Amino acid sequence: MNQTSQTTEEFIIPKNEIRLTDGTTFHSYRTEGSLCMHHEEFDYKQGIAKIRKPWIEKRESRGDKNFSQMYYARRGEITEEMRFVAMRENVSPEFVMNEVKIGRAIIPSNKNHLELEPMIIGKKFLVKVNANIGNSAISSSIEEEVEKLRWALRWGSDTVMDLSTGKNIHETREWIIRNSPAPIGTVPLYQALEKVKGKAENLNIDVYLETLIEQAEQGVDYFTIHAGVLHDYVRLTEKRVTGIVSRGGSIMARWCLHHKKENFLYEHFDRINEVMKKYGVSYSLGDGLRPGCIADANDEAQFAELRTLGELTKKAWEEDVQVMVEGPGHVPLHLIEENVRLQSELCNEAPFYTLGPLVTDIAPGYDHITSAIGAAMIAWHGTAMLCYVTPKEHLGLPNKQDVKDGMIAYKIAAHAADLAKGHPGAQERDNLLSKARFEFRWEDQFALSLDPELAQSYHDETLPQDGMKKAHFCSMCGPHFCSMHLTQELRKEEASRK
Amino acid sequence: MNQTSQTTEEFIIPKNEIRLTDGTTFHSYRTEGSLCMHHEEFDYKQGIAKIRKPWIEKRESRGDKNFSQMYYARRGEITEEMRFVAMRENVSPEFVMNEVKIGRAIIPSNKNHLELEPMIIGKKFLVKVNANIGNSAISSSIEEEVEKLRWALRWGSDTVMDLSTGKNIHETREWIIRNSPAPIGTVPLYQALEKVKGKAENLNIDVYLETLIEQAEQGVDYFTIHAGVLHDYVRLTEKRVTGIVSRGGSIMARWCLHHKKENFLYEHFDRINEVMKKYGVSYSLGDGLRPGCIADANDEAQFAELRTLGELTKKAWEEDVQVMVEGPGHVPLHLIEENVRLQSELCNEAPFYTLGPLVTDIAPGYDHITSAIGAAMIAWHGTAMLCYVTPKEHLGLPNKQDVKDGMIAYKIAAHAADLAKGHPGAQERDNLLSKARFEFRWEDQFALSLDPELAQSYHDETLPQDGMKKAHFCSMCGPHFCSMHLTQELRKEEASRK
Repeated sequence: MNQTSQTTEEFIIPKNEIRLTDGTTFHSYRTEGSLCMHHEEFDYKQGIAKIRKPWIEKRESRGDKNFSQMYYARRGEITEEMRFVAMRENVSPEFVMNEVKIGRAIIPSNKNHLELEPMIIGKKFLVKVNANIGNSAISSSIEEEVEKLRWALRWGSDTVMDLSTGKNIHETREWIIRNSPAPIGTVPLYQALEKVKGKAENLNIDVYLETLIEQAEQGVDYFTIHAGVLHDYVRLTEKRVTGIVSRGGSIMARWCLHHKKENFLYEHFDRINEVMKKYGVSYSLGDGLRPGCIADANDEAQFAELRTLGELTKKAWEEDVQVMVEGPGHVPLHLIEENVRLQSELCNEAPFYTLGPLVTDIAPGYDHITSAIGAAMIAWHGTAMLCYVTPKEHLGLPNKQDVKDGMIAYKIAAHAADLAKGHPGAQERDNLLSKARFEFRWEDQFALSLDPELAQSYHDETLPQDGMKKAHFCSMCGPHFCSMHLTQELRKEEASRK
Repeated sequence: MNQTSQTTEEFIIPKNEIRLTDGTTFHSYRTEGSLCMHHEEFDYKQGIAKIRKPWIEKRESRGDKNFSQMYYARRGEITEEMRFVAMRENVSPEFVMNEVKIGRAIIPSNKNHLELEPMIIGKKFLVKVNANIGNSAISSSIEEEVEKLRWALRWGSDTVMDLSTGKNIHETREWIIRNSPAPIGTVPLYQALEKVKGKAENLNIDVYLETLIEQAEQGVDYFTIHAGVLHDYVRLTEKRVTGIVSRGGSIMARWCLHHKKENFLYEHFDRINEVMKKYGVSYSLGDGLRPGCIADANDEAQFAELRTLGELTKKAWEEDVQVMVEGPGHVPLHLIEENVRLQSELCNEAPFYTLGPLVTDIAPGYDHITSAIGAAMIAWHGTAMLCYVTPKEHLGLPNKQDVKDGMIAYKIAAHAADLAKGHPGAQERDNLLSKARFEFRWEDQFALSLDPELAQSYHDETLPQDGMKKAHFCSMCGPHFCSMHLTQELRKEEASRK
């Protein structure tokens, strides 16, 4: 798989080029950016190219006060970001502008994230995947975090959330942003809490806004904000099996109960809006009351919060701020569709961004699989972006292999949904791979797969010889029982009779 | 996890007992049989206990001519097999009898498989999983195959298909059956083909029936029979991307085209019926024309064959022979439900038994995941048994790790479907595990999971110390950001205020 690009007057559009032995060339969507990120000699302190610099300078020099893509879309202005994503997704810039205008899609793009190669999140576009990275109090350095970012992008992550909570979070975030062609999201509440020494009750809107500005200055593209965890809703979680499982949710619940007051993020949403506008940051309205187990799915607490998120979506839109809405979590198969339907209704089709959901609780160690099942289903029904889950979920901090395993499971889920939605062109890769399979072009089969090296290593485990790359069978059925080989022979014989 | 049992006057019902640290005991369905199969000193040449010997002797001594469970059900006789599965599934024997009588469930049970601990396949019961084992011309010994059987049962396989095609297939099969408490299925066509030295055109009904009787004598519980691949249907596959991908389907297609005659299995279905009755073998009507890629899903060839399988189901039922019907394969998410609906309609609710389906073709090396997504969906809609797919599918013969990975992915899919169908009691394990999670009972969380050792090893990777088994956090979020810990503290404080 080679990195390639489509160069126009304006842009270099990132693509992966896969050349097949039958002369066909296939281009796939590339999340690593237009410049290959995997040099051996990579030094994170260099940062990557600032492709948006001239775009932003132009807007600043004319005195823009709102840097949200929705603001431009509503004025009928097609931005560079819109043109860029239109080329990435093979649609017209007008279509992109309209989807952003009505709030059905967002282009997360802080004006200070100049390294960003824009992408779009919305149900009319390819389903996207987010990977969470970040250290916890237990482990990891800045260099490791930047490496995790690159690794997640290598395996197809469309956006990356930095959920660091330990030391050096400002500096870690700085280098993540300076090295990311993908949008970066954060949960500013974590850093705000560190600023008040971990005491939730000491939080207030001022320390929160200070944190928001600090992070917005660095270039964070979207913020998870738990403004929907209202004081009254906390009691709705009392009978739950696993209570509140969102960190942000539990912090805000504690604050509300301690002060016997309404959530200050909800109360001061207008002030937050001002920061979002100024930097062009998008909301990811957090679902602080999402269910943490099958038993708690689709309950009153969850849907009460969702109604409030719908209300906040409209408030954000009044100021032309882009919004996506976070969703669960843990949901059994038969309750998944209701989540999408309600979110779409209550939030006027603002993009839905769900964590899985896991469709059972009984498989810790395999939650990339339990959740990929739910993720495929929910994306088919309209979720625009999936937050991945790694095999370590509920058990520990993921390592590189876990990040890769989580990403691949989610690329599968996202692609399965694209196929089911009939997304134009989505099936081409399946068809090319299946054709290569039928024609025993093993090398092409490997090249077209999500993980070429692994596919080849599995094949070579039993048949490593070079000649076997052209063999009309594999060790699964052996030479005499390969149905594809039998079909091919049959077709040849039939052809020769005609 | 301890092996345990529920002993009644008549039976020892296999169960796994999981004792939790809070005093609760949970019993789970056990596929390994009532006697633990994992002695270090296991010798396959001993075979396991023949628990059905007295049941079958009674029927033989009274001169029964039809040993099918449907035959007994239709006469209103509740057999030992029905009582056994009723206890396994926590339903009444009358309910079991009725489901078998109307053909909506089957109890695969050859009268010569005396070691069988009966199980039931039907949409009103727990979703079942089948594992394929068997050597190919490339590899493996009898001992290895018996070990694969035990390994598949260890991870929850409900039935096992022996798809051996190499040398010693008679003897390999013998020892598999003599050591299996689970039903064994085969595709007799493979051995019949070996008997005519691999020349499909030399097959005929006599060599086929001879093979059928040989295998039925050994005790095979269900046969995959490709009687629905009609001569006329072969041309419907001509434009397909991957043609015919069932081995049995491609063999029968070749035979039909060569002789320009109708499929001899279809033509002589009555004679096959006679063998099935005599031994009490169940049909697994093979889907020889199942789609092998997304592009070929739900096409004319597939559904033409399905209509014929519906016709054959009724023919089998005329002789009181039990039937399940095989299904695909490769199907995108949005076309899955149609498969179940049509099969149910055309085959009068005879149990559906599907291979996956894979919901995309682009992830060789991860097809246990691509297919677990489809499997969960199709089982939720009513598929009674899922044939697992391993990570090596399309690439090579699976090893032990692949068998385990495939099985776990499919136990997840089956359980997710049980939850979504609201199967009584299915959610208990999820609830217990989630409660243990919320209460930081790590040992219980591991014990209740599908793979306790793996879950614990993932946890211990970063926090191996004994004290961490009671810690109110893990390395994923660290001590200060565990939402469950925060919720617990909140609940305590609220309680103390009241």
